[in-house]
Amino acid sequence: MATERLAAQLKFIVEIDKLKAVLRATTLTDKSRPENSAEHSWHLAVMALLLAEYADTPVNLPHVIKMLLVHDIIEIDAGDTPAFAQTGHDTKAEREQVAADRLFGLLPPDQSEALMALWHEFEAQESPDSHFALLVDRLSPLLQNAHSDDGGSWVAYNVTREMVVKRMQPIQAYSQALWQATEAIIDKGVADGFITAVESE
Amino acid sequence: MATERLAAQLKFIVEIDKLKAVLRATTLTDKSRPENSAEHSWHLAVMALLLAEYADTPVNLPHVIKMLLVHDIIEIDAGDTPAFAQTGHDTKAEREQVAADRLFGLLPPDQSEALMALWHEFEAQESPDSHFALLVDRLSPLLQNAHSDDGGSWVAYNVTREMVVKRMQPIQAYSQALWQATEAIIDKGVADGFITAVESE
Repeated sequence: MATERLAAQLKFIVEIDKLKAVLRATTLTDKSRPENSAEHSWHLAVMALLLAEYADTPVNLPHVIKMLLVHDIIEIDAGDTPAFAQTGHDTKAEREQVAADRLFGLLPPDQSEALMALWHEFEAQESPDSHFALLVDRLSPLLQNAHSDDGGSWVAYNVTREMVVKRMQPIQAYSQALWQATEAIIDKGVADGFITAVESE
Repeated sequence: MATERLAAQLKFIVEIDKLKAVLRATTLTDKSRPENSAEHSWHLAVMALLLAEYADTPVNLPHVIKMLLVHDIIEIDAGDTPAFAQTGHDTKAEREQVAADRLFGLLPPDQSEALMALWHEFEAQESPDSHFALLVDRLSPLLQNAHSDDGGSWVAYNVTREMVVKRMQPIQAYSQALWQATEAIIDKGVADGFITAVESE
């Protein structure tokens, strides 16, 4: 028999299997299907591992990775709110806090608090680690759209250059090197006709 | 323009998107579809974060998490070899080394070596960190089969108690507390009729 503590941990571990069924606006690069938030979280953690050297302010990589691993778990209850969607952003914070309370609340108190703190740190965007985690979260769909042959969610949401630049602002703010690469990717997205060059009225 | 180094890193990051299309023998708990190796890797990393306290020999958690994040990337070329399948195990090591050379070879040399070393450490099973990573890798499908309402890959591969106990041996070897819980889960799998009680001929 598992102790009460272990039983709670296993219950949470089984529960978060559901993150694999939360679909994002982004598709896989091969466009076979929408990306889910669990595999997305994995991808971000590996990206952080490889790109941490480009953070303008040095980061605590293990902490960034933990933050990325847990930052989307609340979507199991709250759903993913697509970046370029017109609706859902007004109720996002409240829906996500209720979700965090239920989901992290499945864990023993110390771990519940630890994961809640990681998620709050990501949302608050007040630490270099959370800044870099956000940067990676923004860079990922940019790469996926750039490498899909139809412009992915850029085209699906009829996105303008100004919208993309605004969305990628954390990259500009937190990594000179990655921003240079990002600008080149956006320019190519415009040249390929996936991103509208001027703001549409 | 990205530097040559960054270009190589971004190429690898785009390439490993393909891990999301590598399917495992295990299904999601809700049985809607097979699990893929990218979301599986995410799940293992979170499990390690929550369960590291049960390792009989203390582990370096950030190192375990990195190992789990990269240990399945070679499956992009080598495929997943299901635990209970009859074929594929004889050629597994060679296929996987060729895959590792190509995939990790996309990265700049220092990162290529670092990821290769993480993967080799996992495969060699000579360090406490690799032991605990393997334990988590074994525990995950056990939980998924136990929480699916039809016994998942236990039933699909017509598995006996002896086969499951043998497969879960790393749990027995590396965590007393998790082994206690594992035994209870296996007993329940037998009681539910998902695992055959005695070795079939």
